[in-house]
Amino acid sequence: MSRAELDPELLVCQARAGDVRARARLFSLVENGGLAAQNALAELAPLANHACVVGITGPPGAGKSTLLGRMAAELRRHGQTVAIFAIDPSSPLTGGAILGDRIRMQDLHGDPGVFVRSISTRGAVGGLARAVGDLVVTADALGYDVILVETVGAGQDETAIARVAPTVVLVEVPHLGDDVQAIKAGILEVTDIFVVNKADRGDADQAVAILRAMLSLGQRHDDWVPPIVKTSATTGDGVPRLLDAIRDHRAYLQREGRLEAWHRERARADLLAAVRDRLFAQAMARISSEQLDALVDEVASRRLDLASAVDRLIGEPGC
Amino acid sequence: MSRAELDPELLVCQARAGDVRARARLFSLVENGGLAAQNALAELAPLANHACVVGITGPPGAGKSTLLGRMAAELRRHGQTVAIFAIDPSSPLTGGAILGDRIRMQDLHGDPGVFVRSISTRGAVGGLARAVGDLVVTADALGYDVILVETVGAGQDETAIARVAPTVVLVEVPHLGDDVQAIKAGILEVTDIFVVNKADRGDADQAVAILRAMLSLGQRHDDWVPPIVKTSATTGDGVPRLLDAIRDHRAYLQREGRLEAWHRERARADLLAAVRDRLFAQAMARISSEQLDALVDEVASRRLDLASAVDRLIGEPGC
Repeated sequence: MSRAELDPELLVCQARAGDVRARARLFSLVENGGLAAQNALAELAPLANHACVVGITGPPGAGKSTLLGRMAAELRRHGQTVAIFAIDPSSPLTGGAILGDRIRMQDLHGDPGVFVRSISTRGAVGGLARAVGDLVVTADALGYDVILVETVGAGQDETAIARVAPTVVLVEVPHLGDDVQAIKAGILEVTDIFVVNKADRGDADQAVAILRAMLSLGQRHDDWVPPIVKTSATTGDGVPRLLDAIRDHRAYLQREGRLEAWHRERARADLLAAVRDRLFAQAMARISSEQLDALVDEVASRRLDLASAVDRLIGEPGC
Repeated sequence: MSRAELDPELLVCQARAGDVRARARLFSLVENGGLAAQNALAELAPLANHACVVGITGPPGAGKSTLLGRMAAELRRHGQTVAIFAIDPSSPLTGGAILGDRIRMQDLHGDPGVFVRSISTRGAVGGLARAVGDLVVTADALGYDVILVETVGAGQDETAIARVAPTVVLVEVPHLGDDVQAIKAGILEVTDIFVVNKADRGDADQAVAILRAMLSLGQRHDDWVPPIVKTSATTGDGVPRLLDAIRDHRAYLQREGRLEAWHRERARADLLAAVRDRLFAQAMARISSEQLDALVDEVASRRLDLASAVDRLIGEPGC
C-alpha cells in the first residue's frame, strides 16, 4: 500500500494534479465508504458544485450505454472532460463488462479526459445512492466538466436518480407497446428530457406521441417543458441536440435559482439520512443481542406486536 | 362512517365472519396505516401465519397478471380461497385497471373466495413493503388459504419481494435476448421457482437453457434446486404444475424449519425498521426547524461536512 492510500490528503492532491492512477484509487476509496472516505470527502466537498451532473435512466435494452459513449465522444470533441458512473445491474452473465465494452467501441478508452466506473447494485439501495452521491462530489471536485450517471429504470426506486442529478434524462425506444405500463408516474415527473433512442428502427414518432400524451397527464413541480429528443446511438444522430437540451435545462435551473434549491434539498435529505443512521447505530450499541433475540422471537410468534416491542427496546423515558 | 370503521375490533369481527364489504374496508384501513391500522393489526397478527404466501415477480409484459388469474381459478377449483395483492406501477395511462381486467377475464370477479387489491407504488418504497406486509398479515388472519403478491421486476429493490413472501416465483418469457442483463444476480438468488411463460410462442427451451446457465453461476443460501416451469397463461397450460412446484417448495421450507426461520428474520427486520423510525421521530421532535435549516444551508454550501453537521444536531453527550 502506498503512502497516498493511508493519507487521503496526499491522494486528493495527486488526483487533483491529474495522476490517473491516483484518481482511480481515490474513487475506489470513496466508493468503499468508511472513515477514510469521510476524510477524503471532507477535503473534496468544498471544491465541488461546479460540474454539470446528468442522470440517464431507462429500461434495459434501450441503448443507454451506447448513447453514453456517443455523448462522451461529442463532449470530448468540444474539449470537455467527462466522468461516467454506471449503476451495474450485476447480472452474473454480463457482469460489469457492458458499459466498458461500449465505451471502448467509441475509442474513448485510454483518454485521460474520460473516467468510467461501474458500481454494483449488490447491497442496500439506499447505501448505493449515497455512494453514487459521494462519487459525483469526488468527480466534481476533481474538475470533470460533465458527470453522467446511468441507472437501469423500470424499478421501484428509479426516481432516486433525481436525488443524484439535477437533470434527469429518460431513454425509451420506439414500440413502447406493452412496456408503457413500466413507465411510471414517478419517473415521468422527475424526467427533464426524454429521448426516443433507436429512432432509425421503428416508429419513433408514435413513441413521441405516446410520451407527449403521458406527459400531459402528469404534473411537474416546476414550469419546465421537457423536450423529447430522437436519437440513434449507433449512428450518433441526435446526440448534439440531446447535449443542447441538457445545457438548456441547466441554464433554466440556474436562471430560476433551482440549482441552489436542489443542492439545499439534497443536503437536507443527506443530513436527515445521516441522523437516522447515527441514532440507530447509537441505540444498537446499547441493546444486547440477547434482549433483541428474545423480542424477535415474541414478535415472530405473534405473541407481541411491533409497537410494544419497540417500546420495550427504546421506549423507556429518560433514555 | 359506520361504527365498524371507528372500532377496529368490530370491523375485524365482521370481516372474519365473511362480510365482503367489511373485508374491503379492513384492507383499506390497514393499507392506509396510522393508529387505526396499528390497532387492527394488533387484533389480526395473533391469527396469522397459516396462509401459503407467494411472491410473483418478473419484467413488464411477461404476462404475470394473466398468470395470476389462471392460478387463482385453478386454486378455486380445488376449493382454496385466494387473496391477490398487485403492486401497481402507477402508469398514468394504464392506472390500476390492468390486474382487475385480467381477473374479470377469468370469471373470478364477484367470487367471495377471491380478494384482489392493487397497491400504488407512489410514496416511499420502504413504506410500500411494510404496507404489503401488513396486508398479507391481514389476509392471512382472515383465513385466505393462498396469498399471491405481484410485483414488477427489473428494479433495484426487486429482491424486496423475498421479504414479503417465503416463496418467490420469477416469470420470464422466451427470447430473453437483450433483456438477460435485466435479470440480476439478486433476484436469481431469491427466486425459488422460475416460470417461462408464453411457452407456446417462441423458443421456450432456449430460455430454459439460459436460465439454467445463469442459475449454475449463482449461489443460493439453501439447498433447494429451483424448478423451471413452462406455462402459457393464455391457455392455462402448465399452471397446475406451477402450483405443484409452489406446494413442493412450501413443504421443503416446513420440513427444514426454514419457514419458522423466515418469519423470525422478517420479525427482526420489521422490528429494527420500527426502532429506526421511532428514534428518528423522537429526535426530530426535539430539533427546531430553524436549527435544521441553518445546518442544511451550511452543508449545501459545503461549509460544513455531513458528519460534523450530525454531531451538532444529535451528537451532544447525555442527550
